[in-house]
Amino acid sequence: MVISEQPTTQYKVIGTRPIRHDGLDKVTGRAVYGADVRLPGLAFGAVLRSPHAHARIISIDTTQAQAAPGVLAVMTAQDVPARNMDADRIMATEKVVYRGHPVAAVAATDLNSAQQALELIEVKYERLTPVLGIHEAMKPNAQVIHPNFKGDHLGEPVGNTNLATHLRYELGDVENGFKNCYAIAEREVDLATVHQGYIEPHTGTARWDENGRVTVWTSTQGAFGVRDSVANALDLPQSKVLVCPLEIGGGFGAKLAVYLEPLAAILSRKCGRPVKMYMDRQAVFEATGPAAAATIKIKMGVDQEGRIQAAQADLRYDAGAYPGSPVQAGAVCCFAAYDIPNLLIDGYAVMTTKPKTAAYRAPGSTHVAYGVEAVVDQLRTKLGIDPIEFRIRNASHEGGRRADGPMWGPIGTKQVLETARESSHWNSPLEPSNTGKLRGRGVATGFWRNAGRRSSVDLAVNYDGTVALTEGSVDIGGTRAAIAMQAAEVLGIPAEDVIPSVVNTDSIGYTDNTGGSRTCYATGFAAYRAAEIVVQEMKRRAAMLWEIDDNDIQHRDGVFQSASDPELRMNFKQLASRLQGTGGPVTAAASVDVSEAGGAFATHLVDIEVDPDTGKTDVLRFTAVQDVGRAIHPSYVEGQMQGGAVQGIGWALNEEYVLDEQGEMQNSSFLDYRMPTSLDLPPIDTILVEVHNPVHPYGVRGVGEVPIAPPVGAIANALHDATGHRFDSAPMKPGRILQAMGAVKDQ
Amino acid sequence: MVISEQPTTQYKVIGTRPIRHDGLDKVTGRAVYGADVRLPGLAFGAVLRSPHAHARIISIDTTQAQAAPGVLAVMTAQDVPARNMDADRIMATEKVVYRGHPVAAVAATDLNSAQQALELIEVKYERLTPVLGIHEAMKPNAQVIHPNFKGDHLGEPVGNTNLATHLRYELGDVENGFKNCYAIAEREVDLATVHQGYIEPHTGTARWDENGRVTVWTSTQGAFGVRDSVANALDLPQSKVLVCPLEIGGGFGAKLAVYLEPLAAILSRKCGRPVKMYMDRQAVFEATGPAAAATIKIKMGVDQEGRIQAAQADLRYDAGAYPGSPVQAGAVCCFAAYDIPNLLIDGYAVMTTKPKTAAYRAPGSTHVAYGVEAVVDQLRTKLGIDPIEFRIRNASHEGGRRADGPMWGPIGTKQVLETARESSHWNSPLEPSNTGKLRGRGVATGFWRNAGRRSSVDLAVNYDGTVALTEGSVDIGGTRAAIAMQAAEVLGIPAEDVIPSVVNTDSIGYTDNTGGSRTCYATGFAAYRAAEIVVQEMKRRAAMLWEIDDNDIQHRDGVFQSASDPELRMNFKQLASRLQGTGGPVTAAASVDVSEAGGAFATHLVDIEVDPDTGKTDVLRFTAVQDVGRAIHPSYVEGQMQGGAVQGIGWALNEEYVLDEQGEMQNSSFLDYRMPTSLDLPPIDTILVEVHNPVHPYGVRGVGEVPIAPPVGAIANALHDATGHRFDSAPMKPGRILQAMGAVKDQ
Repeated sequence: MVISEQPTTQYKVIGTRPIRHDGLDKVTGRAVYGADVRLPGLAFGAVLRSPHAHARIISIDTTQAQAAPGVLAVMTAQDVPARNMDADRIMATEKVVYRGHPVAAVAATDLNSAQQALELIEVKYERLTPVLGIHEAMKPNAQVIHPNFKGDHLGEPVGNTNLATHLRYELGDVENGFKNCYAIAEREVDLATVHQGYIEPHTGTARWDENGRVTVWTSTQGAFGVRDSVANALDLPQSKVLVCPLEIGGGFGAKLAVYLEPLAAILSRKCGRPVKMYMDRQAVFEATGPAAAATIKIKMGVDQEGRIQAAQADLRYDAGAYPGSPVQAGAVCCFAAYDIPNLLIDGYAVMTTKPKTAAYRAPGSTHVAYGVEAVVDQLRTKLGIDPIEFRIRNASHEGGRRADGPMWGPIGTKQVLETARESSHWNSPLEPSNTGKLRGRGVATGFWRNAGRRSSVDLAVNYDGTVALTEGSVDIGGTRAAIAMQAAEVLGIPAEDVIPSVVNTDSIGYTDNTGGSRTCYATGFAAYRAAEIVVQEMKRRAAMLWEIDDNDIQHRDGVFQSASDPELRMNFKQLASRLQGTGGPVTAAASVDVSEAGGAFATHLVDIEVDPDTGKTDVLRFTAVQDVGRAIHPSYVEGQMQGGAVQGIGWALNEEYVLDEQGEMQNSSFLDYRMPTSLDLPPIDTILVEVHNPVHPYGVRGVGEVPIAPPVGAIANALHDATGHRFDSAPMKPGRILQAMGAVKDQ
Repeated sequence: MVISEQPTTQYKVIGTRPIRHDGLDKVTGRAVYGADVRLPGLAFGAVLRSPHAHARIISIDTTQAQAAPGVLAVMTAQDVPARNMDADRIMATEKVVYRGHPVAAVAATDLNSAQQALELIEVKYERLTPVLGIHEAMKPNAQVIHPNFKGDHLGEPVGNTNLATHLRYELGDVENGFKNCYAIAEREVDLATVHQGYIEPHTGTARWDENGRVTVWTSTQGAFGVRDSVANALDLPQSKVLVCPLEIGGGFGAKLAVYLEPLAAILSRKCGRPVKMYMDRQAVFEATGPAAAATIKIKMGVDQEGRIQAAQADLRYDAGAYPGSPVQAGAVCCFAAYDIPNLLIDGYAVMTTKPKTAAYRAPGSTHVAYGVEAVVDQLRTKLGIDPIEFRIRNASHEGGRRADGPMWGPIGTKQVLETARESSHWNSPLEPSNTGKLRGRGVATGFWRNAGRRSSVDLAVNYDGTVALTEGSVDIGGTRAAIAMQAAEVLGIPAEDVIPSVVNTDSIGYTDNTGGSRTCYATGFAAYRAAEIVVQEMKRRAAMLWEIDDNDIQHRDGVFQSASDPELRMNFKQLASRLQGTGGPVTAAASVDVSEAGGAFATHLVDIEVDPDTGKTDVLRFTAVQDVGRAIHPSYVEGQMQGGAVQGIGWALNEEYVLDEQGEMQNSSFLDYRMPTSLDLPPIDTILVEVHNPVHPYGVRGVGEVPIAPPVGAIANALHDATGHRFDSAPMKPGRILQAMGAVKDQ
C-alpha cells in the first residue's frame, strides 16, 4: 500500500512497477558475479589465517611453500606497500588481532595447490590474551590491543587505550530535565555480534600490469570505494587502479571494505599473472566485518501528560580489532524519533580482538532502537497510554532539532505513526492462542539519516528513441530500474526505453558507494539532471528542425511542441529519429554532490507467539510502515522494507556469533548460524508513506536501511506483551526465554 | 620528418610521441580480440558456403544435419528476419551469386561437430553462368544477376541490368577543352581484385536473450555500424542490439560490413545459447569484401606551357555481387590533384558474380591515380617537363573546384609536391645497377577526401588529476592515444594522464565507424570539445574555492589562475584534488557531427629495379610525402603512411585474385596470395607536411587512407622509367614484365 501526501498522477513512470532491466540476466543465471571471472593464465590465491584471536608474530617461514608444486608466489605483510592500520587489517604485520586475520597468502596454478601450500608456511606466534568483550576492553587494566594508537576522546587524542572513540551530543540540560519528570525508566540492553549473512562470499580478482596499473574485478557495493581502498593499500594513485564491478549477491554494508582485492593484486605483481581469490563461508564469518555488538543504556523521563522531558544514553559499540564503528550514527539515531528538550548521549567505540566490524544496514540504529523503544514501552505502560499515541505525542517534527544539532526538515515521524494506527494490523485485535502459546504485540519506531554524496550519470540518445544510461552505482536492490525511471520521467519515455549500464571506474565520473541508502536519491538525482540536459538539447534540435526559436519549444509528457504553433509537435521518439544532421548525437553528463537529506522513519508492528515449553518464538504478523519520500519503484521499496524487517527478526530472535573464550567462533556456518528462512516467517506487510523530501526533485528519501532499525525493539516489546518479561539481550533466543519465564517477572 | 606551415611550439602534447595507452596490452597478448571471446555455454557455428559462383538454389535439406551429434541448431535464409539485398548477401535466398555465399549454418556444442554437420546438408543447385568481369557484365546480352534490381543511371532507375550505378561529374566544356590542346594522351588501365589482407580473420559471437535483446562481440571498425547492420538484418530496433567491440587485427575498410554476426545471432536464438563463429583464411578471401577490380580510362590534354586544359575519365568498378562500390569516391578523387578547367567523368559500378566488394583504404582512389598519373607522366614526358614541376604547375589549390562541385579550402597539393622536390630522395640521382638490372624512378600524387561524421566522447576528472575518457571509436591505428592527446592538450596535462577506453554501444553516444580517415579528426574534435567543457567547469570550481568571479579565472598551460591576483594559481592536478565539496565530480559529454573536410594529398617517390631475366621488381627506395594537417602523434601518422605505401606496393606488383572460369579462387591462402613482407621492402621514408585544416581546432586532416592512392601509379611510372614500357595492368607481375620486354617498346 502506498499512502502519499502528494498526488502521484502527475507522473507517468515514477510510482509504476516496470520489470527491472537486469531481471532476466539474474533469473537466468547469466549475470556475472565475482566468482564467474575467468581470465587467461588465471592463478588462484589462498590466505593463511591466524588461528589465534590475539598473538604476536615471531616469525613466518615461507621457504617450503615457495618451493611447493604449482606455487607461483607467496606473500606476507612485508609485501604490502602501505604501512597503516588498514594495511595491517588486510595482512597482519607484528600481531594478529583477530582469529582469521591474514598472515600470508599463496598464488598457485590451481586452488588446491595454493591451499596445500598454506600448510607448509610455518608461523611462530606468541599468544596474547584475547580481548573479547566491550566491558573487558574498557577495564583500566585491559590488555591494550594497539599500543601506538591514539583514540579520539571528546576531541582529544588519548593513547594506551582500547577506547577508539568517545563522543557526546547534548541538548538542553538533561540533569534538570530529569528532575522535573513524573516518571523515569532506565534499561541496559546488549546485542551480540551478528553477520549480514549475504549469500555470496567475498571474491577478488586482480591483475597487476607491467605498466604498474592494477585491474580489479570484484563484487562490491562501490567500484570507486574499492579503487580508493586498493590504491591506498598498494600506495598507488587512484587512477592506477581500474575496478570492474560485477553483480553482487548481497552486501548490506559489508561489501564496502576490501579484503581479498589488495592481496590478489600483490600476488599478481609477484607472479605476473592475474590472481583470483575467494572466501569460504567460514572465512566470511571469521574474517569479514560483522555488525558490532553493543551495550546500550537508556534513561528517559516523562511528565504527567506523557511528554518526554529528558533522555540520556550511554552507547558502547564493539568496533572489533580496529577503530571505525557505528557509534556516531547510533548516537544520531538514538532519540531521533522523539522531540526531547533535554538530551545527553555518550557514545563509545571500543576495540576488541574480533574482526573489524562493518556496516550492516542503518549501522548503529538497530542497537539504539532496541534500548530506546523498550524504555518508551516501559514509560507508556506506566502511564497507561496507547503505544502509538505515546509516540505520536512525542514525535520529532519539522523545525525540531536532531541530537547532533541539525534542524529537522520535513520528516514523516508522525505520519508514519498515524498510518500505523490506521492500519488493518493495528485495528485487528490479537486473538489468543488456542494451543496454549503466549501471544503479544509490539511496536517500535526507528530512524536512519540517509546519505547523499557524489554520483555521476551519462546519457546518450539513440536514434530509435531509446536512451543509454551509464552509472557508477552498482545495483543492489533494483537501482538500475529506479535510476532509469527517474531519467525516463524527465524525458517522457517509458522506463524500458532507458538502457542502464553499471560501468567500470574508467568509464564514468566518481560515484560513491552504494550504501547509506543514497543511490536512488543521489544517483537518481544525477540521472534527473542529465535528463534535463538532454531535454534542453532536444528542444534546441527541434527548434533547429522547425526553424523557430529555442524558447518557443515546450516539452511536456514526452512531447516537444511549439508554444505558438500547435502543429509543430513531435514526441521523443520522433525527434530522436530526426537528430541526424542537427549537430551530432545528443549526449549528457551530470554529477551531483548532495548532502545527507530526508532522513527516514519507520514504525513496525509485530505479533508474536511464544511456545512456553520450548521458548521458541514465532512471528505471526508483521507490518512495516515507513516514510519513503517518494517510491520510485514501489516493489523495490517494499522489497527493501521486507528484507530489512526479516534481517531484524533474525537479529532479534536467533543470530549471534558464538565465541569460545579464545575468540574462536563456534558457529561459522549457515547450519549453525541460524538465519530466518521463508519457513520461519509470515508475509511482511508494507505500508509506504510518502512525505515529500524537498531536497530531491521527486521527493525521494533513502529506503534501504531504516527497516532494520525497529524490529529488535518491536519484538522485545511484543515478548513483553506476551510473557510479561523484558528481554534485554539479543538474540532473544529460546534458552533466554525459558530462563526468564522460570524467574520472577520484572517491572 | 615533419614540415609545418605553423609553429608547433605552442603545443605541449600535440606533436609529441607518447607510448600508446594500449601498447602493453597489445605487445603482451593481453588485448582481447574477437577470437578470445569465451562465454558460459558457448556454442560454435559453421557456415555452409556455395561451391558455385552463380546458381539457383533448388532445395536445401537440413534434416540429417539437425539430427547429427552435438548439433544445436541449423539455419537457412528462411530464418533471416530481413528481406532485402543485404540480408540476401548474408545468406542466399533464391540464388547464390558468388562462390562462398552462405547457404546454411549450423551451431553445435563444438566446432568440429558443426563442421561435420555441414556435410550432411544437401543443397540442390541449378548452375548458372558466372559473370566474372566488368566488360562481360556490361554486355547487352549479359546474364542479369539480380533481375528485380534497378540501377541508378544518372538519377534514373533502370532495371534488367548489371549496371548498378552510372554517375557523371562535369566541369566546363571538355569537348572544347580538348580542341584547344597542344598534346593529348589517353590510356586504359585495369586493376585486379585484391584483398585487404588483414591478419585477423573475421569473427562474430552473439547471444540472443529471452527479452529479444541481442549482444554481439566482434572485432570491427565500428561498433555502432555493426549495431545498425545487425539490427537491420534481424529486423530489430537499433537499441535491441548491444555491440561490444573488441580489439581489431586489421580492417582497412573491410571490417565495416557484417558477415557472421547476424548468423551467430539467429543460431543463438534457435539454440538458446551464445554462438561463436569465425572464418578461416579461405572464407576471408572468398566471402568477405575485397577491393574492387576496375578498368580506368583516362584522357588528358595540355597546352604548350604544360597546363592541363581538359580531362575525361571513364571509370568502371567491379562492385561484386551486390550494388555498392567505390565509384563515387573514385570519381571525386580522379582529377583532384589538378586544376583543370574542363572535365568529364563517367563512373560505373558493375555487378558480377564475385563477393560484394568492400572498402580498402581510400576506396577507388588507387585505381584512378594509376590511370591519371600514367597519363600525366606521358604528357610531361612529351613536353619534357620535370614530373614534379609539371604537377606543381597544374596543382589544385584553394578556391579551385573539385570535380563534384565543392570549392577547395586550404589544401596542400602544391606544398606536398614542393616538399617532395626538396627531399633528399628526389635530390639523390638514381645510380645505375651494376648487376645489369634496370632501374627507374617514378612519381605519383593521390588524393583522399577524408570523412567527418558523428563522434561522441565523455570525460570524467579523477581526484588524482587524471582524466578518464570514453569513446565510441574503435582503435585501429593508435587513436586511443591520438584522441587522448587532443583532450590532454586542452586540459594542460600529459597524454599519459588521460585514460582512454573504447566502450560498448550502451555506454557512449553514437559514433560512426572508424573509417574514412575520420577518427583522429572527428572523435578528436569531440574530445577537444569535451575537454573545453571540463576546463570551463574547473574554472568555475576554482572560482568557488577562491571566492572570486568565474570570469576572473584564466587557464593556460594547465594552470588555472586569477587574472587579478597572481597568487591564486593551481595546476590541473592540484585543482582536481580539491574538487570534493565543490559540487560533484567534474564530468563532460560532447559530440560532433562534422562534415567531410581537409582532404589530403600525398606524393610518393619510388625507385625500383627490374631483373630482366626474371621480371621481378624490387623496390629500392620509397618516400611518402603527405599533407597531414597536423600530426597529433607523428609516429602513428608515419605508420599509416608506411602501411598504406606497403599495401600499395603489394597491389602494384603482386597481389590479385586468380579466379578460374567458374569463379573459383585459385590462390585463397597467404602462401599463394603473395603480399609483401618486410624482406621484400626497403624502409619507407616519410615526410609529413602540415597544412592547417581550419575546420579542426588543431588543424587535423585524416591521414590513414591517402597513402595507398599513389603507389600503383608511382611504380608504373618507375617501371616505365626503368624499362621504357608502360604497364597498364596491375599487378605488374614478373610475367607481364617479361612479356612486355619481349615486345616493342610502346610510346
